Amino acid sequence: MDFDFTSEQEAMREAARRFARDKLAPGYATREADGFIDRALVREMGALGLIGPELPQRFGGLEAGGVTAGIVMEEVSYADMNVGYICLLGSLLGILLSSHAQADVADVLVPRIIAGDTIVALALTEPSGGSDAASLAMSARREGTSYVLRGEKTSISLALQADHAIVFARTGQAGERARGVTAFVVPLDAPGVSRTSFSDVGSAAVGRGSIFFDDVRVDEACRIGHDGGGFHQVMNGFDYSRALIGLQVLAAARASLDETWAYITERQAFGNPLAKYQGVTEPLAEAETLLSAARLLCYKALWLRDQGRPHTAEAAMCKWWAPKTAFETAHRCLLTHGHAGFSRDLPHQQRMRDILGLMIGDGTEQIQKMIIAREKVGRIAVPY
Amino acid sequence: MDFDFTSEQEAMREAARRFARDKLAPGYATREADGFIDRALVREMGALGLIGPELPQRFGGLEAGGVTAGIVMEEVSYADMNVGYICLLGSLLGILLSSHAQADVADVLVPRIIAGDTIVALALTEPSGGSDAASLAMSARREGTSYVLRGEKTSISLALQADHAIVFARTGQAGERARGVTAFVVPLDAPGVSRTSFSDVGSAAVGRGSIFFDDVRVDEACRIGHDGGGFHQVMNGFDYSRALIGLQVLAAARASLDETWAYITERQAFGNPLAKYQGVTEPLAEAETLLSAARLLCYKALWLRDQGRPHTAEAAMCKWWAPKTAFETAHRCLLTHGHAGFSRDLPHQQRMRDILGLMIGDGTEQIQKMIIAREKVGRIAVPY
Amino acid sequence: MDFDFTSEQEAMREAARRFARDKLAPGYATREADGFIDRALVREMGALGLIGPELPQRFGGLEAGGVTAGIVMEEVSYADMNVGYICLLGSLLGILLSSHAQADVADVLVPRIIAGDTIVALALTEPSGGSDAASLAMSARREGTSYVLRGEKTSISLALQADHAIVFARTGQAGERARGVTAFVVPLDAPGVSRTSFSDVGSAAVGRGSIFFDDVRVDEACRIGHDGGGFHQVMNGFDYSRALIGLQVLAAARASLDETWAYITERQAFGNPLAKYQGVTEPLAEAETLLSAARLLCYKALWLRDQGRPHTAEAAMCKWWAPKTAFETAHRCLLTHGHAGFSRDLPHQQRMRDILGLMIGDGTEQIQKMIIAREKVGRIAVPY
Amino acid sequence: MDFDFTSEQEAMREAARRFARDKLAPGYATREADGFIDRALVREMGALGLIGPELPQRFGGLEAGGVTAGIVMEEVSYADMNVGYICLLGSLLGILLSSHAQADVADVLVPRIIAGDTIVALALTEPSGGSDAASLAMSARREGTSYVLRGEKTSISLALQADHAIVFARTGQAGERARGVTAFVVPLDAPGVSRTSFSDVGSAAVGRGSIFFDDVRVDEACRIGHDGGGFHQVMNGFDYSRALIGLQVLAAARASLDETWAYITERQAFGNPLAKYQGVTEPLAEAETLLSAARLLCYKALWLRDQGRPHTAEAAMCKWWAPKTAFETAHRCLLTHGHAGFSRDLPHQQRMRDILGLMIGDGTEQIQKMIIAREKVGRIAVPY
Repeated sequence: MDFDFTSEQEAMREAARRFARDKLAPGYATREADGFIDRALVREMGALGLIGPELPQRFGGLEAGGVTAGIVMEEVSYADMNVGYICLLGSLLGILLSSHAQADVADVLVPRIIAGDTIVALALTEPSGGSDAASLAMSARREGTSYVLRGEKTSISLALQADHAIVFARTGQAGERARGVTAFVVPLDAPGVSRTSFSDVGSAAVGRGSIFFDDVRVDEACRIGHDGGGFHQVMNGFDYSRALIGLQVLAAARASLDETWAYITERQAFGNPLAKYQGVTEPLAEAETLLSAARLLCYKALWLRDQGRPHTAEAAMCKWWAPKTAFETAHRCLLTHGHAGFSRDLPHQQRMRDILGLMIGDGTEQIQKMIIAREKVGRIAVPY
Repeated sequence: MDFDFTSEQEAMREAARRFARDKLAPGYATREADGFIDRALVREMGALGLIGPELPQRFGGLEAGGVTAGIVMEEVSYADMNVGYICLLGSLLGILLSSHAQADVADVLVPRIIAGDTIVALALTEPSGGSDAASLAMSARREGTSYVLRGEKTSISLALQADHAIVFARTGQAGERARGVTAFVVPLDAPGVSRTSFSDVGSAAVGRGSIFFDDVRVDEACRIGHDGGGFHQVMNGFDYSRALIGLQVLAAARASLDETWAYITERQAFGNPLAKYQGVTEPLAEAETLLSAARLLCYKALWLRDQGRPHTAEAAMCKWWAPKTAFETAHRCLLTHGHAGFSRDLPHQQRMRDILGLMIGDGTEQIQKMIIAREKVGRIAVPY
Repeated sequence: MDFDFTSEQEAMREAARRFARDKLAPGYATREADGFIDRALVREMGALGLIGPELPQRFGGLEAGGVTAGIVMEEVSYADMNVGYICLLGSLLGILLSSHAQADVADVLVPRIIAGDTIVALALTEPSGGSDAASLAMSARREGTSYVLRGEKTSISLALQADHAIVFARTGQAGERARGVTAFVVPLDAPGVSRTSFSDVGSAAVGRGSIFFDDVRVDEACRIGHDGGGFHQVMNGFDYSRALIGLQVLAAARASLDETWAYITERQAFGNPLAKYQGVTEPLAEAETLLSAARLLCYKALWLRDQGRPHTAEAAMCKWWAPKTAFETAHRCLLTHGHAGFSRDLPHQQRMRDILGLMIGDGTEQIQKMIIAREKVGRIAVPY
Repeated sequence: MDFDFTSEQEAMREAARRFARDKLAPGYATREADGFIDRALVREMGALGLIGPELPQRFGGLEAGGVTAGIVMEEVSYADMNVGYICLLGSLLGILLSSHAQADVADVLVPRIIAGDTIVALALTEPSGGSDAASLAMSARREGTSYVLRGEKTSISLALQADHAIVFARTGQAGERARGVTAFVVPLDAPGVSRTSFSDVGSAAVGRGSIFFDDVRVDEACRIGHDGGGFHQVMNGFDYSRALIGLQVLAAARASLDETWAYITERQAFGNPLAKYQGVTEPLAEAETLLSAARLLCYKALWLRDQGRPHTAEAAMCKWWAPKTAFETAHRCLLTHGHAGFSRDLPHQQRMRDILGLMIGDGTEQIQKMIIAREKVGRIAVPY
């Protein structure tokens, strides 16, 4: 066993940390008010290799592995977990495109993702259902060498900011369930595309929204993988992204916890620093424990992925537990600061709200626990 | 034993409910954006007897008891728990003024509170400390028949909206701790008063803020109770207000829970209504249980108070546990709604944020548990 | 509202308390080793009116209501919760017999239950299933004026000690589910009856066991209610007994908590009594709060029952939550005593084990939460 | 990073597993009834290298590191966590003796520990205090080339079975606190030694007990380390043993969890296998997650120790959290089995009781959390 990172990974962490603390951290609250992430920052991240560091070298990536992507995610999200969505989608969709897109599309798009020149969103969920991807209604009708997309996608991160979307649509019949689903790259300035965004309680800088496809025509070159192969491709990627999400939210919580340990040595109550009271320190020691353990779980899932081994159960563990632990930690840190923590002057309340979004996005805890159970005992554990 | 309310109380509940659901509920989100509570509404509440229903008849009150005040609190807060602060402060400070203010002041002020014509705030906390009221720094210097107040109070609910504040200041020496503290009624348009407010993550309609007293002169008629008697007076009142706070937050959580039970019968996932899944219903059944139990605890504390019996431990139980349970319930309801719950279009996220403020205000959970322990085993349980 | 007991109830509590603390408490551990409850004690309880105090006067009962039965349960179980099973079954089955047994049987049996002269057990569960009463396999075949019972019942409290059992058997076809089930009183010295008992980790004094019925012939006079009416009769009674169970386990936990509050004022660590440490007192203050709240919930359910009002949801709340809270409290009290608590010299470990049995018996927490959900949203919440 | 074990470690796991499942698992319940661990088994463990595998080769150890010791602990404790105490004390005290005992003693004793020929116990705690080792009262009076020990030690694992004890006694003045404490090896057949054991609710096979030293004379060769150096030596070792304890209890819980996953695929309720119900699978999926994460934390602490790096905070995390998680898992597995789990026929109840002992032994959760806080913010976090 080895719990150390390589010196290359440590160097990457250092570079990511310097950038994140200098350039990202100061704007965490501002970006919420703005409702978007400055593109110049995204390009700067690209220049530093912080987007898709695991992507293939032939596309300009570092082929540095998922553990390295996790390191970058931690540093970025410690400063601003919303910017972490750029990393998350860069990795998840960069891999999908690298592996399954047709060469013409991949050769152009993946390098631009890595460079921070373009943002690609994932358009999977539909209004009628959350995690039930197999029952998609959006259609992609073949017409000559084109497909014509029609339908509505929702709960899309970066919906208004993205330049392209990976869109999952039904090319087969409804009865085929997951097998009839195909993925496409769609430029979001194509005719027939319109978008709206939600007013959410968290992650306004990411901007969750809907994209409407009103007979949007895309060339068959934009199809990803073969016809009907879309669903399982992205589902595989989800294992990976779930571990990254774990590190994303844990890093935000870690930032709050670090700040809170410092705070309790200074703030006085009843003649002592807060740190003297077990009622104050014990919940923080608990959070310290759980954050440490959850972080190991995430790195283990990434490491398994880098080894080419199954990690579906581990990823599901990361996805339900890390956001829960992170939320509770941010909440506890907020409370430990008393009314100061309730104010928007301190970041704990924002982190709590932002983490909250990832208790929901990418599958509820019920779904993740069902996956864990299914990995243990098989389909019998699926209640529907 | 009797767990029923009287028919008078039921009638009061019905009147409060009609008003709250018609007039308060629709504006819950709007009031957050506005950052204040419309005075016309407050007067309407006064006209219906919803402010200070336990206050003496000689001041225009109904002398209906604390249980009745709890009923009103539940109905108001089910619709908008921020408006519940009007009830909370009306009761807490109305009682303080009725019992301890000099007749000239009480005769004028208490009827106006009851009528919703004036709002009185509580200015107790200072920047240096939360619940440590005994170490107040603000001074009230005697000059002839006046007192001159100097200092800063913070974390004051309704700071910008209030017309008067009950201010606790030190008339004795610092070494006297709680015994040197005296309370005053101060009109907030007096020379030397200035105010600022915080940008909080919740309860913006209430507007927590600071009030600065720069040599503010008040007549000795504004002194409440005798010199040095302030602290214990308000501490007694806190037992009562803690039980009311319990009902305030539980009612907000109850609203979310009621809406969520309805939602899960309609929303489909994987071919069934959500209500078919134990992973969905079990947390709601737990919340149902805890809300029911916490509510009984609050009513018992109010009933004890109405009987003139000690209820310090019971009130502390209400104060730490009801907000915790209410927060977790609102959080659970939000999650059960998935991304819809994350949107500001639904009230769960606002209720969660508003409840959060009362996990902090009026004493942290550590303080409340210390009070419970102290009531069981005495001063030995005080860790400082 | 009124949270006080009547003076008659207080007198009953006082009598029960005196008996329980004098006669029951000293033998709590011994009774575990013995594996049974001394019949002389049971008769003494009967003489004091502690068994079935809510049963009709025409059978020798006090008709004192369920709240009074709850009071007795609390006092008995504070001293020895295993003896509380005598009260529990006395009430549950006494009511069933009073209401539904044929006059000849009821007139003889109910007075003897009340007097502590006989113990009646409930034989409902079968090896193949826990709470799934509708799928019973045991058969009762009509032969002339008799029924012939054949099958196996298990998880029967007091299996070896009881003199009679109320046995649920199928008189109809399997397809009729609950509607084909009929209840019988069976004397356990009848030919064809045999019994075994389990070695359980808790409540050895109660002795959970199995009863085998090998063509046991009973007269039709022993049928309770009409043919096929058995299941719903006992299910109604379960609502009531669940609230009693709540008080039974809470009282045991209360005993541990009372003892632990005392202990922490005496035991020293690091130069202070344990009571000085928030890490010690906070969990006890939490337990204090939850025990108080859960107790109110139980009494409310009993009161509703006494009023003739529905209390199914409330009873299910008592059943899942009170044992959970009681278990955690006993566990916490054990831990607070350190290694002393781990020893069999102190009762906390026994109480924890005994309470554990009632986290299982009479329906798991999953069943209770399903009942709560079903009461809120209907059959849609039943997952099978 | 590398989450794999070496092939040597995997071979060691395989050997340990085969032995443990064949020889230890079948006797888990029997050993409780017997109240001791068969010495032939201990010697067999020694022959296989399962005791103290990290001890130096010059004493017959494998110098295989703490991670390997953790592997062995997992396999042994999966089968019988009480036998894990042999491993725990072999490692903890083997290291202490290897590093600090005088050569004559170490050369004889350590090889015999490793071989399973002798059992050494740790006699640290005294009746007056749990974790407060600095206030020891037991005295060791120097007389010529001997020390004379007088006092009482308690809460000693394997008290009746051990052949020797490492005894901590005060050679300096009481005012010196930890600095005046010295450790000695004492053969337990020495004149003046007497022993008693407790009747505990768990781990009867280990047999917690007291040892009384009535002017027991030991040669100065039995002194470990220099005079007054005892306390800090053993405290260092505790960091290591805490991580081993973590794996010990997690392995027991893992055994229950594995058995429970299997059970729910077979056991039917309401027409489906239990595995179909989310109310059943979700708690198991949670346990799966927490066990996996806590296990990583333990291995990381062991790995840090093997690297010669500080691991005090990590070890404290293992010590409070792993037993808590393990206890809750065993409890949940017991409940999932319903009444079958309540019976002594299944091992879950025993595992729950045995794990319970390690929620207490070696420092309460409050102590561990205080250590974590102290590691973060320094002495300010010590409340006494």
